[in-house]
Amino acid sequence: MSDTAQAARAVIGDSEFDRDTAVTLREPGVYGIDLSAGWTIINAVNGGYLLSVLGRALADALPHSDPFTISAHYLTASQPGPAVVRTDVVRTGRTLSTGQASLFQYDDEGREVERIRVLASYGDLDSLPDDVRTSVKPPSFPPMEQCFGPEDGPAPVSGSSAIAERLMLKLDPATLGWALGSPSGKGEMRAWFGLADGRDADPLSLLLAVDALPPTAFEIGLSGWVPTVELTVHVRSRPAPGPLRVSITTRNLAGGFLEEDAEVWDSADRLVAQSRQLARVRVG
Amino acid sequence: MSDTAQAARAVIGDSEFDRDTAVTLREPGVYGIDLSAGWTIINAVNGGYLLSVLGRALADALPHSDPFTISAHYLTASQPGPAVVRTDVVRTGRTLSTGQASLFQYDDEGREVERIRVLASYGDLDSLPDDVRTSVKPPSFPPMEQCFGPEDGPAPVSGSSAIAERLMLKLDPATLGWALGSPSGKGEMRAWFGLADGRDADPLSLLLAVDALPPTAFEIGLSGWVPTVELTVHVRSRPAPGPLRVSITTRNLAGGFLEEDAEVWDSADRLVAQSRQLARVRVG
Repeated sequence: MSDTAQAARAVIGDSEFDRDTAVTLREPGVYGIDLSAGWTIINAVNGGYLLSVLGRALADALPHSDPFTISAHYLTASQPGPAVVRTDVVRTGRTLSTGQASLFQYDDEGREVERIRVLASYGDLDSLPDDVRTSVKPPSFPPMEQCFGPEDGPAPVSGSSAIAERLMLKLDPATLGWALGSPSGKGEMRAWFGLADGRDADPLSLLLAVDALPPTAFEIGLSGWVPTVELTVHVRSRPAPGPLRVSITTRNLAGGFLEEDAEVWDSADRLVAQSRQLARVRVG
Repeated sequence: MSDTAQAARAVIGDSEFDRDTAVTLREPGVYGIDLSAGWTIINAVNGGYLLSVLGRALADALPHSDPFTISAHYLTASQPGPAVVRTDVVRTGRTLSTGQASLFQYDDEGREVERIRVLASYGDLDSLPDDVRTSVKPPSFPPMEQCFGPEDGPAPVSGSSAIAERLMLKLDPATLGWALGSPSGKGEMRAWFGLADGRDADPLSLLLAVDALPPTAFEIGLSGWVPTVELTVHVRSRPAPGPLRVSITTRNLAGGFLEEDAEVWDSADRLVAQSRQLARVRVG
């Protein structure tokens, strides 16, 4: 457990996630950040954490604060350490604004290397009308106490990764076969999700939630690395306080690529985010 | 029917779709095009046609030819007529290259106005390994002769739009209730899809296929305009010759926005494209 997780319940705006995604304005549209080593999986910086950093810079650069739809193309592997985010306001409108952002780090000669490029349209979730005509219900989840995380046993559920200490991740046993040597063969992964320090979810942390579970490829029976090529997230509602349920599905594994579709449900049973990523399968 | 549709079956590279998406290199990375009025729905230029134009410019600008994943944010409404596409090569790699493109038109004073901005990662579909582990089957479709298009009766299925003459679109009667005044209430739309002149599908025309059906909102019981905010397409395989089946689903209509998820199946029952768009609901 990290220090803050043992302290009182953290709040939005004053938590490890908020501190580790905080960007500093350096000049108009340009932000500095020191990427935290706290959100790494083995040695890779988590793609959802990186998207949250970019999403936060855009929230500052644009006149609207909430990412309605954000598309990221992952170019090169990010490392913990200094980075710069360059933003570009593409269009501002009354309801929506569109922006672009790139995350850069530095090579051995100090030259900028682009890590991720993002296009996004932002709006104001609180200004939307209240109509909800969602036709789907949350998937069936066992109660949280019947789900399992890295702290619950000897199974190596991301246990060696720094990010595991910062997340409350409780996997549905039905999608945990891979950790016990008997993957289900289905492209499904489901978990209760939160931040370990108790900070509630907000639109920014939803960008983390959609990319924080083990890859569905594990349950399909593949091991190895599944790097994201592109990830698009739609944030559809401000999440209610309390833990989230994240359900990820892969329907099409072909030609060495697969898609991961995530749905995120809040404690009020509302579908608060949908995402899809295209990932490469690098069989280990 | 357009002239070419009555001629012999058109082929990839020599068809109306190919001529209407052809871009002319003006200077490195910059392409000119005259947007055709032939792909309009009422007065709006179809978003899938526009994405095909941008996709074609990127195929020329990048070292790879096939859009593996392409994300478009729609900024302002395009008009038939002159336009310019500016491309930017973000990164080139062995398997994938990433590029950016923007479509511009001109205001009354001749200033450039940005219509669409796109980020995309391209590869070579023919170089992919042959493994396919798709877990889903094509949805159940009635035979094409039991499906209906604008030419089949008095129902106004896009009949007043130029694009209808260029498409072979046969809607599943189960998703045609809206045209007869009794929408099903489900967010579903399914159709057999092809080009009217008989040109077979290729990766570029898949970008058109995912955005060519009537909006699912019609079957939910809403009328009016459903403009796209963002559309991301994953092309997963080169389609086999013959008609495509396109299935579109909306699961979440909330706060005045909805998503449309499209799956495109080829004549060999292969899932060749997946897409998702976020659209605004402007009730008429």
